[in-house]
Amino acid sequence: MADRASSLIQTLLGRRVYDLEQPRTSTMPIHPAHRPGYLYQLHRRHRDGYTPERTGPRSGASGMLTMMEHTGTHIDALSHQSDGLRLYGGIEVTPQVETQRGFTAHGIETIGPIVARGVLLDVCAAKGLDLLPAHYRITAADLEAAARSAGVTVRSGDALLVRTGYGKVWDDATRYLAAAGVGREGSEWAAEQKVRCVGCDNMTWDETEERDPKTGGALFGHLHLLARCGIAIIENLMLESLSHDGCSEFVFVCTPLKLVGATGSPVSPIALA
Amino acid sequence: MADRASSLIQTLLGRRVYDLEQPRTSTMPIHPAHRPGYLYQLHRRHRDGYTPERTGPRSGASGMLTMMEHTGTHIDALSHQSDGLRLYGGIEVTPQVETQRGFTAHGIETIGPIVARGVLLDVCAAKGLDLLPAHYRITAADLEAAARSAGVTVRSGDALLVRTGYGKVWDDATRYLAAAGVGREGSEWAAEQKVRCVGCDNMTWDETEERDPKTGGALFGHLHLLARCGIAIIENLMLESLSHDGCSEFVFVCTPLKLVGATGSPVSPIALA
Amino acid sequence: MADRASSLIQTLLGRRVYDLEQPRTSTMPIHPAHRPGYLYQLHRRHRDGYTPERTGPRSGASGMLTMMEHTGTHIDALSHQSDGLRLYGGIEVTPQVETQRGFTAHGIETIGPIVARGVLLDVCAAKGLDLLPAHYRITAADLEAAARSAGVTVRSGDALLVRTGYGKVWDDATRYLAAAGVGREGSEWAAEQKVRCVGCDNMTWDETEERDPKTGGALFGHLHLLARCGIAIIENLMLESLSHDGCSEFVFVCTPLKLVGATGSPVSPIALA
Amino acid sequence: MADRASSLIQTLLGRRVYDLEQPRTSTMPIHPAHRPGYLYQLHRRHRDGYTPERTGPRSGASGMLTMMEHTGTHIDALSHQSDGLRLYGGIEVTPQVETQRGFTAHGIETIGPIVARGVLLDVCAAKGLDLLPAHYRITAADLEAAARSAGVTVRSGDALLVRTGYGKVWDDATRYLAAAGVGREGSEWAAEQKVRCVGCDNMTWDETEERDPKTGGALFGHLHLLARCGIAIIENLMLESLSHDGCSEFVFVCTPLKLVGATGSPVSPIALA
Repeated sequence: MADRASSLIQTLLGRRVYDLEQPRTSTMPIHPAHRPGYLYQLHRRHRDGYTPERTGPRSGASGMLTMMEHTGTHIDALSHQSDGLRLYGGIEVTPQVETQRGFTAHGIETIGPIVARGVLLDVCAAKGLDLLPAHYRITAADLEAAARSAGVTVRSGDALLVRTGYGKVWDDATRYLAAAGVGREGSEWAAEQKVRCVGCDNMTWDETEERDPKTGGALFGHLHLLARCGIAIIENLMLESLSHDGCSEFVFVCTPLKLVGATGSPVSPIALA
Repeated sequence: MADRASSLIQTLLGRRVYDLEQPRTSTMPIHPAHRPGYLYQLHRRHRDGYTPERTGPRSGASGMLTMMEHTGTHIDALSHQSDGLRLYGGIEVTPQVETQRGFTAHGIETIGPIVARGVLLDVCAAKGLDLLPAHYRITAADLEAAARSAGVTVRSGDALLVRTGYGKVWDDATRYLAAAGVGREGSEWAAEQKVRCVGCDNMTWDETEERDPKTGGALFGHLHLLARCGIAIIENLMLESLSHDGCSEFVFVCTPLKLVGATGSPVSPIALA
Repeated sequence: MADRASSLIQTLLGRRVYDLEQPRTSTMPIHPAHRPGYLYQLHRRHRDGYTPERTGPRSGASGMLTMMEHTGTHIDALSHQSDGLRLYGGIEVTPQVETQRGFTAHGIETIGPIVARGVLLDVCAAKGLDLLPAHYRITAADLEAAARSAGVTVRSGDALLVRTGYGKVWDDATRYLAAAGVGREGSEWAAEQKVRCVGCDNMTWDETEERDPKTGGALFGHLHLLARCGIAIIENLMLESLSHDGCSEFVFVCTPLKLVGATGSPVSPIALA
Repeated sequence: MADRASSLIQTLLGRRVYDLEQPRTSTMPIHPAHRPGYLYQLHRRHRDGYTPERTGPRSGASGMLTMMEHTGTHIDALSHQSDGLRLYGGIEVTPQVETQRGFTAHGIETIGPIVARGVLLDVCAAKGLDLLPAHYRITAADLEAAARSAGVTVRSGDALLVRTGYGKVWDDATRYLAAAGVGREGSEWAAEQKVRCVGCDNMTWDETEERDPKTGGALFGHLHLLARCGIAIIENLMLESLSHDGCSEFVFVCTPLKLVGATGSPVSPIALA
């Protein structure tokens, strides 16, 4: 066992760690449904308990977070979405399943740590653009072209990351909230690859203005991936470094917090390559 | 590059992923200084926006977190502690450094993802105990004995995890808050190994009743490791599975959230072995 | 009009103002259903924005409240309770009535300022006790005896305040939460008087251990007064000064905050006599 | 005593109660320094604990408030402002006075219930306007003219309310935040009258764009009234009904919540006339 661990450690030595999380501040972009979104306040400051004559030179400071779980770089639990008031696997949204303290089925704590092959489909780069147009709807053909362009194949169990380029405008909330996103066929294509999870460098994975002509519904990918296919969605990823290095295949690590019952979790995913 | 990634992916295939995070609920143990601690409330429920005739079968639910950053399994930023009102590196705690929105130096966002060799010093197992006695103070000799017992050597840059066994009583707040912890010499020994970070399966790393006879100060390890040596501390780890498998050497991955300015972050660390 | 106002002002001159609110702190008693209850944190401190050379000598400090609306001295809105999932007046609890942002019917903003004749039924004093026994259940006969003892009559439209004496143990949460309260017949008697609102110097008006032998239900007064009779309940009043002065009849003023949709509001009621 | 009370009750019978509070919602205007400001979330819903077969037909719902104390109609405590890091009365802002849980001097709990003669200076009406111009700076002469126009005299101990007319655009945050306010000489004039407190139908009492030519300071009234003269300020009053009825003299009742240590409190003041 120690030998196995040593060899793993050797293999990882010198590998680059890509940090795929955006910084969290009270001015970051927030989806309208999740406002006010995020606040960190320093609660206790160093001088508050500083009494060197009695308790020595040490002092502590700490704060408080008030945040919706769907802010910043985060992962959606399957309980986040329903299809006709049924969660993935046909679980009915009853008061026993949906409680004031969260869900007793498909809460974020059920996802577990994700350590998977990761693939970047850099649609923005494959189209030779710095940024996809606002509200551009990524198609299945776009995803296939990006895979061909990078010479990668998406496999069952992968973490499939899609790049729009909007990660670079995180500081401009208005522009960021009008990002490109994945269209209906793109989400269906992703689900057909039987991936473990998907992720995108925008607020919602989906392109927000798309409506299903039959039902009037928005956010088809949320419905299809979470409620129908059991595939988690990661949002607000920062994919610029991976793109810059042309890194399309990597080990993806994403460890949701066990916020028992919650419909999602802030995460700080990494790529190792 | 793709080959390097493929080989890494191959190496990781089939490795066990140990989840080192405790579940988060409003009844988990909370340190008195960080009360009320943690609350997750379901904010929007599936029926709230469910209008199938107009917007199709999809519905969403989401919640809100109110939490101190030093609750549950979490990592302390260097700004969490001062030595005579100076942070690590001699940075003075001025109003420019310590603001209402957090610290402009040594905030948790400066730590970055941790991917390091991890070593478990299972003091509890090395002593042949199920649980260390309440308020037992772990010595440097205890740490060295645990390393010998497991046949591992702590190296510079490692993540050094110490097991008291109290992770198994997470559901019993009173007992958990009286856990064993690392004593002064133990913290000094850890710092001498020049580790990247330390972690423990208790609330505070330190043994909480120890007082420095000269200064009257508590939590010596916090002072020494964070403010003097620049070594981050991870608390409330769940180390039972690692101990059960006798896994003493592994790849440790811990990715703090970039809560800009915060003095810590909830984390969900893993061990790969 | 000015004359009318002047005469009113003259009348009020020199009247004593009784403050009927308990102080609010993070250690005050909290009902288990409303934990964590109450937290005030200083958010911005004076030095944070103090730049005298640029903006002069003024500085500001401010904070943040995190609180359940049923903490401290507060009033219950009619939406706080249902009778078989119907609010007062037979309003069904549908998703249109009960939303994530609160109630669209019988929210606390519908109560309006209360300026009414107030009557104190000092059950504790009428029995010659310093404090009613723990969990004592106040009967209709107790209320009538207290009225007789004080020589007051309860009238339609009054604010009816009942004193147990427990206001004086506000600092002892365990004892306070075991207070005496009004029993079933006492609540029925109060409702028969057609009062505007009732109030008590305990956490729940009702005696908390009483159960309806037929239904198993607790808090009968909540069901009867709020959901069936449309009578608001004020809890955690401080009635010691009124009792000390033997003041049984007064002008009662209670102005709920217009927390739109909320099921209650913190209040600071007064008695003028 | 009962006779005195009866006569008071008689006097108040039939008097009109003016409600001077604006409704509180998550979309109301918020001062930039106090964002995110206000959130009410329904936490527990009626069906959550509804088990009629075991506990009868009663069910309860309740929520949680997350709010800065300087939102909505509120009163500023004297601790809200300092003059060169000294509170009113020369109290130095030390760590003993300014703590993580608020102020140990001049916290809002020290104000007590306000029952005072109230005077409305309707500057907007006196000028024959529907609304004062955006950022109009009310002068001492404006206040004196409004008093003459209404035939009232401001006296020592009064609650002095100033109307800009902006209360009617509470639903239009952008316009409201550009309201008229009281200028430097206006605040000095108010202080000279030795009033108990002042109030205004805007966000800040002061006109927000005024700067002291000597110091560069904003919000002169805050500095002068709170830190130098010990006069509380009430903001975001709704004065439209008083103005409509031409009611310039009344009994003013305002009862701050005893949020121990806080720099202000939401209030729901009334005028009786």
